Amino acid sequence: MSHQSVTLHKPRGQMRSQGLRNQSMQLKEMLLRLQHTIEDYIMQLKTRHLQQDPGPEEQRHRQAAREQEATLVHLMCQVVNLLQPCPPLDSSGHVGAGQQAQSSRQPDQQGRPLSDLQAAVISYDLSNRGIDISTVYQSSFQDYKAYLGDKYHEDKNPLGFINLGVSENKLCMDLMTERLSRSDMNYIEDALLQYTDWRGQPFLREEVARFLTYYCKAPAQLDPENVVVLNGCCSVFLALAMVLCDPGEAFLTPTPFYGGFAFTSHLYTKVELIHVHLDSEVTGANACPFQLTVGKLEKAMLEARLKGKHVKGLLLISPQNPLGDVYSRDALKEYLEFAKRYNLHVIIDEIYMLSVFDESITFHSVLSMESLPDPKRTHVIWGTSKDFGISGFRFGALYTQNKEVASAVSSFGYVHGISGIAQHKLCRLLQDKEWIDKVYLPTNRSRLQAVHRYVTSNLKALKIPFLNRGSGLYIWINLKKYLDPCTFEQELLLHRRFLENKLILSRGKSYMCTEPGWFRLNFSDKLLCLKLGMHRFSQTLVEQRQDWIEKQLEDALRE
Amino acid sequence: MSHQSVTLHKPRGQMRSQGLRNQSMQLKEMLLRLQHTIEDYIMQLKTRHLQQDPGPEEQRHRQAAREQEATLVHLMCQVVNLLQPCPPLDSSGHVGAGQQAQSSRQPDQQGRPLSDLQAAVISYDLSNRGIDISTVYQSSFQDYKAYLGDKYHEDKNPLGFINLGVSENKLCMDLMTERLSRSDMNYIEDALLQYTDWRGQPFLREEVARFLTYYCKAPAQLDPENVVVLNGCCSVFLALAMVLCDPGEAFLTPTPFYGGFAFTSHLYTKVELIHVHLDSEVTGANACPFQLTVGKLEKAMLEARLKGKHVKGLLLISPQNPLGDVYSRDALKEYLEFAKRYNLHVIIDEIYMLSVFDESITFHSVLSMESLPDPKRTHVIWGTSKDFGISGFRFGALYTQNKEVASAVSSFGYVHGISGIAQHKLCRLLQDKEWIDKVYLPTNRSRLQAVHRYVTSNLKALKIPFLNRGSGLYIWINLKKYLDPCTFEQELLLHRRFLENKLILSRGKSYMCTEPGWFRLNFSDKLLCLKLGMHRFSQTLVEQRQDWIEKQLEDALRE
Repeated sequence: MSHQSVTLHKPRGQMRSQGLRNQSMQLKEMLLRLQHTIEDYIMQLKTRHLQQDPGPEEQRHRQAAREQEATLVHLMCQVVNLLQPCPPLDSSGHVGAGQQAQSSRQPDQQGRPLSDLQAAVISYDLSNRGIDISTVYQSSFQDYKAYLGDKYHEDKNPLGFINLGVSENKLCMDLMTERLSRSDMNYIEDALLQYTDWRGQPFLREEVARFLTYYCKAPAQLDPENVVVLNGCCSVFLALAMVLCDPGEAFLTPTPFYGGFAFTSHLYTKVELIHVHLDSEVTGANACPFQLTVGKLEKAMLEARLKGKHVKGLLLISPQNPLGDVYSRDALKEYLEFAKRYNLHVIIDEIYMLSVFDESITFHSVLSMESLPDPKRTHVIWGTSKDFGISGFRFGALYTQNKEVASAVSSFGYVHGISGIAQHKLCRLLQDKEWIDKVYLPTNRSRLQAVHRYVTSNLKALKIPFLNRGSGLYIWINLKKYLDPCTFEQELLLHRRFLENKLILSRGKSYMCTEPGWFRLNFSDKLLCLKLGMHRFSQTLVEQRQDWIEKQLEDALRE
Repeated sequence: MSHQSVTLHKPRGQMRSQGLRNQSMQLKEMLLRLQHTIEDYIMQLKTRHLQQDPGPEEQRHRQAAREQEATLVHLMCQVVNLLQPCPPLDSSGHVGAGQQAQSSRQPDQQGRPLSDLQAAVISYDLSNRGIDISTVYQSSFQDYKAYLGDKYHEDKNPLGFINLGVSENKLCMDLMTERLSRSDMNYIEDALLQYTDWRGQPFLREEVARFLTYYCKAPAQLDPENVVVLNGCCSVFLALAMVLCDPGEAFLTPTPFYGGFAFTSHLYTKVELIHVHLDSEVTGANACPFQLTVGKLEKAMLEARLKGKHVKGLLLISPQNPLGDVYSRDALKEYLEFAKRYNLHVIIDEIYMLSVFDESITFHSVLSMESLPDPKRTHVIWGTSKDFGISGFRFGALYTQNKEVASAVSSFGYVHGISGIAQHKLCRLLQDKEWIDKVYLPTNRSRLQAVHRYVTSNLKALKIPFLNRGSGLYIWINLKKYLDPCTFEQELLLHRRFLENKLILSRGKSYMCTEPGWFRLNFSDKLLCLKLGMHRFSQTLVEQRQDWIEKQLEDALRE
């Protein structure tokens, strides 16, 4: 302790440069995002001009354009706010006095009028992070918002949106509704209506431990003390990212990858996701498309270190989203051993573990391993949203042998807790192995198989390549041949064409895929919706092809 | 835009000094907390020695001491981690190479062994903020954890803890259980089990708007588009703090004040709460004890500005927690006008609005005002936890006319959402005005009156002063005369004596009260618990007085 003055004094230079580095990284990120939004915006303007038949869709287009304008304004605002510590420029370009530093946010208190640009980019009320969160949220959930306002309904809104973009399992709503309506579900006791353990109700944590022991084939009974339940898997991930990383630290993650974690990690936790880019080509190290190998992880780790990144963990999803990959036991072990070599935490999201519908494929949970390479740094996430098709329940569970991590994550129950009555229902549901094993799972599996068969036969008829991995609620499809040229710009245009035909798909770019042309198509919708969706899908591709032919003809005639 | 290089270049000096200021503020805060924890720890050691009859309580004492030791280690770890950017010292006190900067967290990778102290304060797994969150959480919820593990039960655990420390209304569990068991509650439809609008289900937002219009006596129908529902009022506050403030910015708040917001704002949002200290003396500006006046707000604002604080808002609770104050319409207006003068947002938590049990007192919601001084900067929080005694439901609502704020807050629904089935039940509950007006509210009011009468008559018999404000679920009581000397140390000792007698109260310090000796006593428990609680309460005070007399005697004999 006698050297405290030295330790207090010395780091200043480093603190300073780190603060500057963070600021400039943040600035760079924002400028990049700004650039992308501007590109998107310009693309949209182009599309509007290119449109052959504006029709009633013009109105929607204009609305979308207005939303993008708002996003642009927000982003510019963000940049301006980030630069705010400096005195604002006056009209002649001179730097003003320190006192005027606030003026870009409070123009009404200043004698000097603002320029139009300044006035346009001001948010009077939101903080920088508020603008950041709001902007990314608005642009990420734009399609979903349109869908909510104009959902397809057989009778009431037959021209509404079909959503094959969101990963929801709607195949067994009948079974689930029946099960949730039984009398055991509606039990109420005082403890369910009052504050409880922030880790979750003890009865639910016990049931989750039993459930995971059984379905993950754990070699020994899992411990309820290692379970924390929160309102959704993104909340669990958020809590883990908060307690494992400080702002600016990073997780490695193979891409294409589920965008929800990117949204959560960037906005709320300021943890960077470093992408380990996988590609579709089958050459050399790639025995199959988008294969994750330790070699690629090693390379990404090396590059990250060279860039001075502080990598704290590896983030995996198994079965993978959006690829549907089910990692073999050996592959899984290799990834875990790689992580151990670098003292990385492994967060593995097994939310699709019971959604492997191809019976020739076996899912391996990390919880099934006899010995984990680094048990204190292996953290498993699971929830009922996908496997039981009840995303509206808002339930996610963490299983970790690390008491320190479990304890730190449990404090998030304070602001990410689940209703007691929902905890009771979840407990009853997970408890009913008879129903799960004999009714729910077999029915769900055969329904998943049926819709998967239906969609893949359609794709085959359309000669559209796709990954056939036998798990998950979605297919990763390749629409490259409909892009000319094969760019993300064209991918966006095709996405918009689907929207015009009232069909929502998810495009590869939102999974951080590096190759344009990939889309995720969710097939676990009710057959009626799925059929109409697939009809709109092929319709859109016909239109796209028709346009291409017309363009070719025009070009040929012009020559 | 041509001056961008200038704007990019200039602020560096300011950024640097700001970064340093933040770092050093953080450091100072942590050192202060460390100091307090050490003080608490030493106090505990003292108590252990002073104890007349160790008995079976010794075990619990030791457990508490161990928990405090863990807290200490965490805090020291935090300080070490904060200083981490500097190279660690080697055994001779020399500063090592930059490469070794990581060694304080990864000693297994270093050739050089660590000192005992270094080894003791290392967290291998948690981030700095993880340690911070975990430490504050563990120490804040220590009593509550003890209570959960050893709850009073008439038959099963008659010697368990009685909790008069947590603000929960347990008086109408019978009515609530009956209402929630009716058939309309158990309705299930697909939409409740699936993803929905992140602002909350439209039917619930509509009902909240109708409910608040009616019970807040709004001059016009409130707009459901201005409502966002999240899983609890702390989540709503967290979201508001995130989108209104950047880290380090501040809200003014009068103290004593509900500690949950302090916990939330510090840990998750890094927003500072600047205390406007109120005191109990009735002199000059104080017409009554702990009176909030605009003069005090003005003074706090001035001081904050002089210290270079960036104050973004004023945070109020009405009816107040822990004082029970119900602000008059005029007072409320003055506070809002003060906020407008300084362009401050006002966040007002009206979570106890239907818990005014003294019929001579009228509650005034800010939503009842014909015209708000600054409607776009006035944000109201309400929830069902207190007024309906269902804290386990995890429900909080925001009402704001500021579309930008509502939109930014709605993105928090992604990680702070409520189960669809709970949203349905809440909607049905709020809808049933007949039951609320004719059954629930009158019964709740008369039961609150009865237990309040019971507790206050007990307090009067014990000659203990208290605030008689006729609202809330608790009484703010003055136990100064049991402290000798009147210090926070003695307040803590008295608190511990209550714990030894298996009674939990909340002490004034956790409400940031500046005067030692105040406690919050929650009276809205079932009569059996309350009677036993009050028995233990008076028992404890008799012991305390007995000890004091014995000590006086000993001192007299020694002279």
